[in-house]
Amino acid sequence: MDHRAATPSLLHIDAGASPAGESVSRRLTALFADRWRRDCGSAGHRYRYRDLAAEPVPLVTADYVRLGHRVERRGTVPVEQVAGLLRNAADRREWQLTRPLVAEVLAADVLLLGVPMYNLTVPAALLAWIDRISFPGALLDPGTGASRLRDKRIVVVCARGGGYGPGAPREGLDFQVPYLRGYFTDRGVPAERLHFVTRELTRAWDVPAMAPLRPRAAASATAARQSVTELAGRLAARQRDAARHAV
Amino acid sequence: MDHRAATPSLLHIDAGASPAGESVSRRLTALFADRWRRDCGSAGHRYRYRDLAAEPVPLVTADYVRLGHRVERRGTVPVEQVAGLLRNAADRREWQLTRPLVAEVLAADVLLLGVPMYNLTVPAALLAWIDRISFPGALLDPGTGASRLRDKRIVVVCARGGGYGPGAPREGLDFQVPYLRGYFTDRGVPAERLHFVTRELTRAWDVPAMAPLRPRAAASATAARQSVTELAGRLAARQRDAARHAV
Repeated sequence: MDHRAATPSLLHIDAGASPAGESVSRRLTALFADRWRRDCGSAGHRYRYRDLAAEPVPLVTADYVRLGHRVERRGTVPVEQVAGLLRNAADRREWQLTRPLVAEVLAADVLLLGVPMYNLTVPAALLAWIDRISFPGALLDPGTGASRLRDKRIVVVCARGGGYGPGAPREGLDFQVPYLRGYFTDRGVPAERLHFVTRELTRAWDVPAMAPLRPRAAASATAARQSVTELAGRLAARQRDAARHAV
Repeated sequence: MDHRAATPSLLHIDAGASPAGESVSRRLTALFADRWRRDCGSAGHRYRYRDLAAEPVPLVTADYVRLGHRVERRGTVPVEQVAGLLRNAADRREWQLTRPLVAEVLAADVLLLGVPMYNLTVPAALLAWIDRISFPGALLDPGTGASRLRDKRIVVVCARGGGYGPGAPREGLDFQVPYLRGYFTDRGVPAERLHFVTRELTRAWDVPAMAPLRPRAAASATAARQSVTELAGRLAARQRDAARHAV
């Protein structure tokens, strides 16, 4: 059982390199966050924003890997006790870069990720963050071994320049949505708590050869906006109910 | 037609965070490189080593994305002409970080990648490099639009802690080998020039629960060493033949 405050909490993370004005994924996550915060309304909420482009998470190092292996050999160590296992300045540096990212995830009820596709998969900036939050045992309950992500909602907003759906020429080359679904499922998030919104064909107005796809791109844009808005409203309503019951 | 020198050239890249003594993928790529260089023998060779952990490739930025889109809108621009399209210091900085990486790839006959699995996929450090070498048009022949990777050999040495093969409990969660196969195939590398060596279960001696898997892990280790050695010998022999014909 997580001992979270009754006030619902949103952790909003953007991974794309481009700023809000040029980023489809950032515009969609902003739409979600605005609607969720508004709908939480008088019940109140907590909100944390992290921009992985403005403040990149340092890549994991050999020291990080060594510390992770050492902790892992002791079984599932509570995040709170890792500090007691640090031996030197390198360990302390790695844990200082890692612990706050883990704590943010554990404190959130809803985790919102904005993820463009780069070269068929997610941005390196997102992987750098994933590598940190996946520190051995950090997302597990040390008492039961259960996932500490299992009661959260994970909302992943994906954007990509082309089309990767069934029948598209690039079907089977999507290592963005299936990867993130695989990662969070493997980390113990139940399917019904893992929400994907995917906006396709974002380059249709930019790449001349894609001009015939503009109607489909426009439909994808509309559908994505509707999906994030509807999802934000639905999740905020559940958070309000949960907060009421917790009072 | 690439105008490469007749002297065969190997570009060796390691992506794992751990140093050689602690890295299975680094030991395997070293084995390949040593054998390839020895077998090229008196015919000579060129060798370039890049360590993505010791010298990380900076993540792409909004400036990089903007420059890439601007270049892309002009069709396929030869790498040699991108410099003429730079408008400001930010463009120049991005291109300075990108151009040498592209040039290294284009100059190689054999590209050797050492890639551990982190969180089901490749290290962020490798994606950072992929994002740079994938600069719009950089790997294409501007005259024909054909891939400039199509005559190269790509050798990808993958290591992972668990088992992801057919029948393994984690089957379907491998976003390392299928991703890199998808990426290089999409970039125009023919299947017969794309070589994967995969070493599994590297954590079997480290994670107590994996102890029963040690015999399989040992077999995987032996098979991987044999594969890289055999492959290096075979590719070096072809390089020697090609160099002879070019004389």
